[in-house]
Parts: sequence; structure tokens; C-alpha cells
Amino acid sequence: MADEWQEAYEFAVEVARKAGMVKIDKEMKVLTKSSTVDLVTKTDERVEKIIIEQLPCTESTEKGCELTDAPTWIIDPVDGTTNFVHGFPFVAVSIAFAVKKELEFGVVYSCLEDKMYRARNGKGAFCNDEPISVSDVKDITKSIIISEHGTDRTPAKVEKIFSTMQKILCIPVHGLRGSGTAATNMCLVATGAVEAFFEIGIHCWDVAAGAVIVREAGGIVLDVSGGPFDLMSRRMLSANHEDIAKRIIKEIEVFEVPRDDGVKHLQQPSSF
Amino acid sequence: MADEWQEAYEFAVEVARKAGMVKIDKEMKVLTKSSTVDLVTKTDERVEKIIIEQLPCTESTEKGCELTDAPTWIIDPVDGTTNFVHGFPFVAVSIAFAVKKELEFGVVYSCLEDKMYRARNGKGAFCNDEPISVSDVKDITKSIIISEHGTDRTPAKVEKIFSTMQKILCIPVHGLRGSGTAATNMCLVATGAVEAFFEIGIHCWDVAAGAVIVREAGGIVLDVSGGPFDLMSRRMLSANHEDIAKRIIKEIEVFEVPRDDGVKHLQQPSSF
Repeated sequence: MADEWQEAYEFAVEVARKAGMVKIDKEMKVLTKSSTVDLVTKTDERVEKIIIEQLPCTESTEKGCELTDAPTWIIDPVDGTTNFVHGFPFVAVSIAFAVKKELEFGVVYSCLEDKMYRARNGKGAFCNDEPISVSDVKDITKSIIISEHGTDRTPAKVEKIFSTMQKILCIPVHGLRGSGTAATNMCLVATGAVEAFFEIGIHCWDVAAGAVIVREAGGIVLDVSGGPFDLMSRRMLSANHEDIAKRIIKEIEVFEVPRDDGVKHLQQPSSF
Repeated sequence: MADEWQEAYEFAVEVARKAGMVKIDKEMKVLTKSSTVDLVTKTDERVEKIIIEQLPCTESTEKGCELTDAPTWIIDPVDGTTNFVHGFPFVAVSIAFAVKKELEFGVVYSCLEDKMYRARNGKGAFCNDEPISVSDVKDITKSIIISEHGTDRTPAKVEKIFSTMQKILCIPVHGLRGSGTAATNMCLVATGAVEAFFEIGIHCWDVAAGAVIVREAGGIVLDVSGGPFDLMSRRMLSANHEDIAKRIIKEIEVFEVPRDDGVKHLQQPSSF
């Protein structure tokens, strides 16, 4: 049945918007920097409650859980918590849905920009109901690349992240950017504002919705080694085109991170 | 006469909005990546023509010119040209006005966000007519800092830029960001979304308007050494508070850039 999940998809859009509005209306106004941790926890719980209560299916991923064959919601109520705390203008609600371990649809609501991104397998990607597509730039020297410094300040990891960014900047590329929000970064790939986004250390709930949106916008989602994307691996590269992806992969200095599902990390075979 | 320049200030807001709308309406729709250089040149000239034709005073800075005592417009028709070319969501029109070498007012229109920032000496800073103020965070470990990689890919400069950023990240701070637009970065300081923005290599037209906006929002604008801000030096640090500024200055690795007015660079005496 082709439209088996259409209702769930449409409902996810509604719920993402509702959850995003809660964040803007209620929380941003009472924001004080001194109570940031409480604020994020409270908002996270509150938005998650809204989402969980309203979504029609029962399973939802939890940190460290394993993805099963059951229909499963993969949710990040507040993607970009640091941005949220500071009022930096990229904060997103990310809602994805997987069936038999395959992503079926994804919804990302960038609530401070009021941009609703959504995509369903085989049905195209949209921003505020307008079709979106990735950039047609194949020449890396004409590209903008996104990555993030992450929240882990372990010196060895920080060193690899900066070294990778510096090498990519000096390919050269037009520029490096970072919105501070993985879900929004993926949507920036999907709209063609940047050519690629990669990060090691993201979680499945940061990128599950974005992965569907990038693919449906004509882009590709891979492991940072060039192998197939593994939702639980915490490693992801999304790009407009294989040429851009291949060139970036040459420069990425990989470091180990524990998987979301607790499975020991196995090196992905490179497809390039 | 207190209101001597009020009319010019209000007119600058109108002109910035008009110039920004031209960019959104006319140019973004015909954007093709293959014709980027032409596009930027054309838009730059077009927007500059709109501004120059409409502004009531006669002087305007040109690249490499010297700032005189005459009333002078300092204009960047398209700040964030790389973003503009790619459709990355931060592009600004920046219009400042100086009298006797002192900045009198500044207007920054972040046109893709539709945010009109403005400030006049002693009259406060506003975003879309709402008063804005800098963040009250004084603890660097709770801050977000903005800098940019710039467009110069000289290895020695790139090395210093990355080294500085890495040291600042590891202070540690909450995060590093960069919008790709100096004018917008300064407005992000002024609204409290980030605590500081610094860059070596910016031009007077990138930061003149933003400097007034940051100061009127309660922030400070300095040389990257901690000495007084020199509009023509191509070195700038804006921050919400002296404590944040002092801590960042410790980590900044300075490199030489030719001044906008052709005067040989003299080391600023540090005020800290």
C-alpha cells in the first residue's frame, strides 16, 4: 500500500510545527543565561512530550537503543541546544520515521526561520511546500562546505576536526560554514545553499530526518569513509554530488566514537 | 543641533531596505552558479547605484581611500558575497555615516532574514524597531564566539586563523560560529546571540555600521590587540563585555594586513 504512511507523514509535519511554536512562544521569552541547563532540559522534555503524545505509532528511539524492524519514530525535540540557549537563529525540531530499519520520511522544522522542510521516500523534498533540490556545483573549488566543531573538547578529537577543516578550506573552497544544528545543516545541503555537510559524533536523531530530505532533494548520504550511511554509526557525510563527496572524504581525519546502538564500530568499506 | 543627521539616518534605513529588496526580488531568482562573478558585480553596482543616487550627502568611501572630516557615507551594497552567490541565508546591506571621522549612525539590513538593524550615537540600537542589547554573559566558558576564515588562502594566515580558533574553542567556549557576513556577525553580537566577533582582514565598509550598532546595544568595539578601534586598520573585535574581550585577545594570533587608507600599520597600544 503506497500511502500506508502518508497520514503519519502529514501528522509529523503538524506536530513539528506545534513543537517548534512552543519553543519560540513560551521558552525564548523567559530565557536567562543563568538557567540554561534547566531551560534546555525542560524544553526538551516538554517538546518531546508533545511529540510523543500526538504521534500515532508507539515505538520511539531512546539514547543508546537499537533500531528494530518495528515502525519507529526518531525524534530530536531541540536540535541545536547551544543555539537555543543563546538565541542563535538556527534551532530545529527533527522528526523521522523508519520502517524495517529503512527511513520512510523526515521532517525538520527550523523554527526561528519558520522553515518547514519535509521529504518522503520517492515523493520529493520541500521547504514550506516549495520543491527543493541540491546545488549543481561539481567543482569543489566553487563549493561551500559545512561541518561543526561539536561539543567534545578532547584535544585529540579537536585537533583532527580543525586539521580536517583547514585542509578542506585550502583545497580551496569558497568557504566553510556551520549553523550549529545538524538537522538545519542537512537542509542547507538540500536547498543548495551549501554543497556538503559532514560530521563525526552526531547522533541518529540529529540526522535521520535530514537524510531523507537530502536524498529526496537529489543529494547523497554516506559514511565519512565513502561507504554506505549507517544511521547508528554517528558518522555522516551528505553532499549534492559524488564528485564533491569524494574530494572531501580525502581530507577527513576520522576518529572513533561509540555507536548509538552500542555495537562496536566496524570500519565501513569504502565505495570509492 | 542634536537632530542634524536624523533625516539622513531615517533615509539610510529606507535606502537599505530598498537595496535589500532588489537583491531578494530581482537577483536571487535568476541565480545560476555558473555566472556568479558577473552576478555579484552586477548586483553590487546596481545596489550601490540605488544607494548613492538616493542618499542626500555627497562623499562616499572608495576602496583604499582616506577618511576625511567631511560627512561621509561608508557603504557595502552586498556584504556576504559568497553567501549571496550560494543562497546561504545571511546577506546584508551595510550603510554607515561618519562626520569628522566619527561614526554617527549605522544601518544593517539582513535582507534574507528581513531584519533591519539600526543605531545612532546616543539613541540606542534596534532590530525591526525593537530595542536590542548585548548578552550579559561575562564567563567566557558560557559564550559563543564568532570569527571567519576570510577569503585569503595564504598558508601562514590560514594557519594563524585556525590556530586562534582552536585555542578559543578549547578555553573552552560553548561554540564557534560564523555567518559569512561581518555586518550580520556584528548584529549577532548586538542582539546577544553571541558574545563576541573578531576578524583581521575585514574592510571599513564591512564593520562601520555594525560598530555603531554594537556600541549602542551596550557592547564594545576594539582593535584585536585591545587598543582603540581604528576603522581603517582592517582589525576589529566587538564584544558584549570587557571580560570576554580580554580573554579572547589573549588567544588571537595577529597577522599583518594592508590598511584601507594605505597608511602603514602601526601596532596599537594595548589598553589592557
